[in-house]
Amino acid sequence: MSMNAFVYRGPGKAVVEQRPTPTIQKPTDAVVKMLKTTICGTDLHILKGDVPTCAEGRILGHEGIGIVESVGAAVNTFKPGDNVIIAALPPAQHANTAVAVCLLTVPTVAGIPYADTSLHSANVKGVSKEALVMISDALPTGYECGTLNGNVQPGSSVAVIVFVSLPPNHDIISVLSIAGGGPVGLSALLTAQFFSPSQLIMIDLDENRLATAKSVGATHTVKSGPDTVKQILDITGGRGVDTVIEAVGVPKTFELCQDIVAVGGTIANVGVHGTKADIHLERLWSMNLTIRTRLVDAITIPQLIKIVEGGRVDPQALLTHTFKFSDVQSAYGTFGAAAKNNALKVVINFD
Amino acid sequence: MSMNAFVYRGPGKAVVEQRPTPTIQKPTDAVVKMLKTTICGTDLHILKGDVPTCAEGRILGHEGIGIVESVGAAVNTFKPGDNVIIAALPPAQHANTAVAVCLLTVPTVAGIPYADTSLHSANVKGVSKEALVMISDALPTGYECGTLNGNVQPGSSVAVIVFVSLPPNHDIISVLSIAGGGPVGLSALLTAQFFSPSQLIMIDLDENRLATAKSVGATHTVKSGPDTVKQILDITGGRGVDTVIEAVGVPKTFELCQDIVAVGGTIANVGVHGTKADIHLERLWSMNLTIRTRLVDAITIPQLIKIVEGGRVDPQALLTHTFKFSDVQSAYGTFGAAAKNNALKVVINFD
Amino acid sequence: MSMNAFVYRGPGKAVVEQRPTPTIQKPTDAVVKMLKTTICGTDLHILKGDVPTCAEGRILGHEGIGIVESVGAAVNTFKPGDNVIIAALPPAQHANTAVAVCLLTVPTVAGIPYADTSLHSANVKGVSKEALVMISDALPTGYECGTLNGNVQPGSSVAVIVFVSLPPNHDIISVLSIAGGGPVGLSALLTAQFFSPSQLIMIDLDENRLATAKSVGATHTVKSGPDTVKQILDITGGRGVDTVIEAVGVPKTFELCQDIVAVGGTIANVGVHGTKADIHLERLWSMNLTIRTRLVDAITIPQLIKIVEGGRVDPQALLTHTFKFSDVQSAYGTFGAAAKNNALKVVINFD
Amino acid sequence: MSMNAFVYRGPGKAVVEQRPTPTIQKPTDAVVKMLKTTICGTDLHILKGDVPTCAEGRILGHEGIGIVESVGAAVNTFKPGDNVIIAALPPAQHANTAVAVCLLTVPTVAGIPYADTSLHSANVKGVSKEALVMISDALPTGYECGTLNGNVQPGSSVAVIVFVSLPPNHDIISVLSIAGGGPVGLSALLTAQFFSPSQLIMIDLDENRLATAKSVGATHTVKSGPDTVKQILDITGGRGVDTVIEAVGVPKTFELCQDIVAVGGTIANVGVHGTKADIHLERLWSMNLTIRTRLVDAITIPQLIKIVEGGRVDPQALLTHTFKFSDVQSAYGTFGAAAKNNALKVVINFD
Repeated sequence: MSMNAFVYRGPGKAVVEQRPTPTIQKPTDAVVKMLKTTICGTDLHILKGDVPTCAEGRILGHEGIGIVESVGAAVNTFKPGDNVIIAALPPAQHANTAVAVCLLTVPTVAGIPYADTSLHSANVKGVSKEALVMISDALPTGYECGTLNGNVQPGSSVAVIVFVSLPPNHDIISVLSIAGGGPVGLSALLTAQFFSPSQLIMIDLDENRLATAKSVGATHTVKSGPDTVKQILDITGGRGVDTVIEAVGVPKTFELCQDIVAVGGTIANVGVHGTKADIHLERLWSMNLTIRTRLVDAITIPQLIKIVEGGRVDPQALLTHTFKFSDVQSAYGTFGAAAKNNALKVVINFD
Repeated sequence: MSMNAFVYRGPGKAVVEQRPTPTIQKPTDAVVKMLKTTICGTDLHILKGDVPTCAEGRILGHEGIGIVESVGAAVNTFKPGDNVIIAALPPAQHANTAVAVCLLTVPTVAGIPYADTSLHSANVKGVSKEALVMISDALPTGYECGTLNGNVQPGSSVAVIVFVSLPPNHDIISVLSIAGGGPVGLSALLTAQFFSPSQLIMIDLDENRLATAKSVGATHTVKSGPDTVKQILDITGGRGVDTVIEAVGVPKTFELCQDIVAVGGTIANVGVHGTKADIHLERLWSMNLTIRTRLVDAITIPQLIKIVEGGRVDPQALLTHTFKFSDVQSAYGTFGAAAKNNALKVVINFD
Repeated sequence: MSMNAFVYRGPGKAVVEQRPTPTIQKPTDAVVKMLKTTICGTDLHILKGDVPTCAEGRILGHEGIGIVESVGAAVNTFKPGDNVIIAALPPAQHANTAVAVCLLTVPTVAGIPYADTSLHSANVKGVSKEALVMISDALPTGYECGTLNGNVQPGSSVAVIVFVSLPPNHDIISVLSIAGGGPVGLSALLTAQFFSPSQLIMIDLDENRLATAKSVGATHTVKSGPDTVKQILDITGGRGVDTVIEAVGVPKTFELCQDIVAVGGTIANVGVHGTKADIHLERLWSMNLTIRTRLVDAITIPQLIKIVEGGRVDPQALLTHTFKFSDVQSAYGTFGAAAKNNALKVVINFD
Repeated sequence: MSMNAFVYRGPGKAVVEQRPTPTIQKPTDAVVKMLKTTICGTDLHILKGDVPTCAEGRILGHEGIGIVESVGAAVNTFKPGDNVIIAALPPAQHANTAVAVCLLTVPTVAGIPYADTSLHSANVKGVSKEALVMISDALPTGYECGTLNGNVQPGSSVAVIVFVSLPPNHDIISVLSIAGGGPVGLSALLTAQFFSPSQLIMIDLDENRLATAKSVGATHTVKSGPDTVKQILDITGGRGVDTVIEAVGVPKTFELCQDIVAVGGTIANVGVHGTKADIHLERLWSMNLTIRTRLVDAITIPQLIKIVEGGRVDPQALLTHTFKFSDVQSAYGTFGAAAKNNALKVVINFD
């Protein structure tokens, strides 16, 4: 049996190929027929050739929803026919962070290891299937790495950095990061509201995303520029923000975090960094700061499902474009030039 | 110099009397001219004669806002002319829980000990003065003793118990507690929303308060009766609620908490109890439960001010009646028969 | 193939019987040949007929160490020949608290579900095999339900209640609980020291256990009697203790906890209760207390192994008697009359 | 009235001068006659001219014990004649971090602002006066900034970095930091043991301090050199340490922290840094790390007093030399060349 897969074929190149349909290899596996998937910034990194652990021949994609086709003998929670959300990364007890990025791939039919913990029931009332795709990776990444790691508190001030101007020749990794930065930054913006901050500031260069941010709950938007720090200090009465969420992944934005964080505050790093940054300990050493990094492990998916069901957040806000799998190249093209296309998350439908 | 005060004169009796205007006794004192005050369930307890530490001659009232008239030499934060919110209880470092209930009284002019920590600036943008009175005691009580002690989490289920039917001859203390229970229970209901629970259930006997609860954010209301437990289990898919907030103060409601709490859940006791209750350890010992009690110390007032300023909650929702100080007897009468009068908090204006 | 098992045959009766040797039933199972086991207070409860979910024919025992004989296809962490510690209860993600007490049994050969999480490597340097048996259940119970749930802090005062005098006709469940109370109480006493409390008080009736407590780290011992509360208040300068660990399981001791806990303190319930108790909310409501219950799930075994390896605690202190499996009746007799026999934990060797 | 004070007179120069004896300036002040003081690394920084906010004429010293001579009208906790420990920094509610370093000075008679919170009773049973001096600053710094911020847990592995080889021309600030690094690093080493880590590793260049570390609880010592990282990985089975405490204050050591921290671990920065460092986010972004900075505010002094009273730690271990105030120059000389003199903390007696 074979199926279609979108396969990485060297830097900048990916094609639809026939691949053997996955089967149960271990008793903890499940096989899932995909309904919908989406593209992550990490996929763009792989496509660009930036992820050495992902070699040529790698199938792209690791988010989505589907229907269980078969399960191994040790799978207790799911049975064929179940609608499921696929956790982009298996939870920590099974994860090897070094290889996790490439552990799962989501072609038209997906083989899912540790199905009991990697799948979640998609029986979520009152939520569209498109919205459910966002719970696979984008929403937990913003929530776990941004909001929870950022210790967002009621009444606090929070800034989410999504894009800043970079030097003209800035390396391509960073630009790609930013392509993915939009949806994850907006996920942080959405989920930060679970804890009722009083000031929720979006920092971006893109007017379209700033407008979206405002419409989904930002109390302030700041168009990134030379006076960004001054603007943030003005908004916060000179104190700086209690939580800064870095959703880009370049030194310049991590350093901006240090300029706008308040005494006693937290910097939550969400961005995937390709190089080192400066940390200004000569100022920070006495500021009672916390800096946190985290690789999403999607452990919050069950909680997020309940929150979405409760109506507290509408993940649909992250979705801008829909494609058929036969147009997967256009989907990557659109998301790869996200700012130009006013794109956040794109959904790809299998049929 | 003298002023008017509403003075406890034995069980069931209180009158307006002339009293010497407070003056600075210690360098940490402030004297505040009152603008608005309100009535707490505790005031009704004192009036009834239930609080042995509050003798005849005690001035009633301990919540409100005003204008600073004078400050002691050690007061650094406030100066004459400042608009202030008065914390109902001084923070923990100064509090002696045994006497705290009677430490502060709020007549037309109030003497405030430890002014630097007992007062808070009332410069809160976009909020009416009436609303600010609620930050003095009602809102921090619901927040500290209910929401924070109840460990309310995004996506969780929360139940607030405000009133249940009691045996016909139930002692008066309990009935009085309940008179105060409404506003504090609603404060818990309002502040629980800071953490975005998915289910927020109000349990009450009073249709009017249930309707109010619905209008300010309850996702479900349950009219207390013989099938209350069944209703809660139905709402929560049989699991019970993650957080139960007891805002009454009688054995029956504390025991109801134990019937509806989920495995791993939390019971937050807000009610002022006059007698012991049963704890069913034969069921609870293996349920991984947390039970918490707390006396409000108003340490969250600065945070609540920021939250109110951010628009996340409107304390005005707690306010139902307004009186002049010359009608203080009517104010107590109205609040003392709160259910009959559809009363929550009543505001009393000084002029 | 058959093996020996010690089987419950109705109230007060248990015999060694031939039983089929366990085999792999599910891919997540392991089969373990037992080396050493011990007896838990719960076994005595079952033997007495107090645990309705454990019917006649039930094999007794659920703690121990052994050697893996075979593993299912989905077991990744262990292979035949591995020395293992058996977690008395599977961790929370697999546990159904209602049936957990009877989920595992440890005859001469044990069938272990969810082997990857229910077994732990017994390669612990510098620790005797006898000591390792204590890590199966007694030590995690004292640590999780007592020390961690009690929030023991450096410099704090802690009291562990192990035995108090009971009315002459006190029901048998309680007496049996107490039989198990000794080792679990001492486990709490040992593990509380991980957090360096300044005062560590043992409350017991048994002089022998009080002496043992002193030798393993108690700073004070109190022989339970009419002036227990006064003694505790004297030791703590009138404040009461910050943490009380209830390791008995009868109303009288739970109520004693309420008499000796300090304002802001924590009561950690470890005891298995058979009946309700009084909770004096008329005093407790304003005391900022936390009361916690928990069913051990042995999730701390990996941490405890590291601590034991680090030499911070010697679980051998809990061990008083050793028997061969052929003397299993004597082992139960000795442990069943623990106080009379100066018994804490007894080890039973298989050969 | 006048007294002796040791006064900063420009880079590298300090002399004993006559100064007016402090008097009560504000009702919250106290005046304390000094019994014993000690020297902090910060004093050496000021003496060297590195602290711009401390101008010529500044009195050196901010740790010590003494006897209350007089108190302002708003001081409630202390009275003349009380033996007190002086908190090096007033607690956070009064602190302005920018000026805190220079807020307090401890000549022969000290003026103490906010006496109620800045002083602590020195009635600590069974502890020498010399040891009590360590509770003024060194012990809380190691505890708050190192142990607590480092989230040390039972069974974990902890490394304390006290000294590493630096390039020959390394700037003087760093060298001075290191002079102070020894006692603070050892304070972290002492207080980390409150939480019973299984591995407690001291990294230093100085054989004498390594021997001291071993004698006060280090389980391993590593003499800093080219294979430090390899040694740490060997000790921890390749995982790295759960907590790294940086007690130096130079880029090289902060970067070493990043090389030896385990996935999920914490880096606690204690060192006073004079320049920025590199943060290797290209490795750290997915490591689930926490990095914390903190300025000691001595809020843990009451807790530390109880711990010292309980015998869990002997601060005397930090004390190596004693001087009279008339030999204050020798005291600074000895501490300024700490490594050469095998010096940790030096005590200076007033008479």
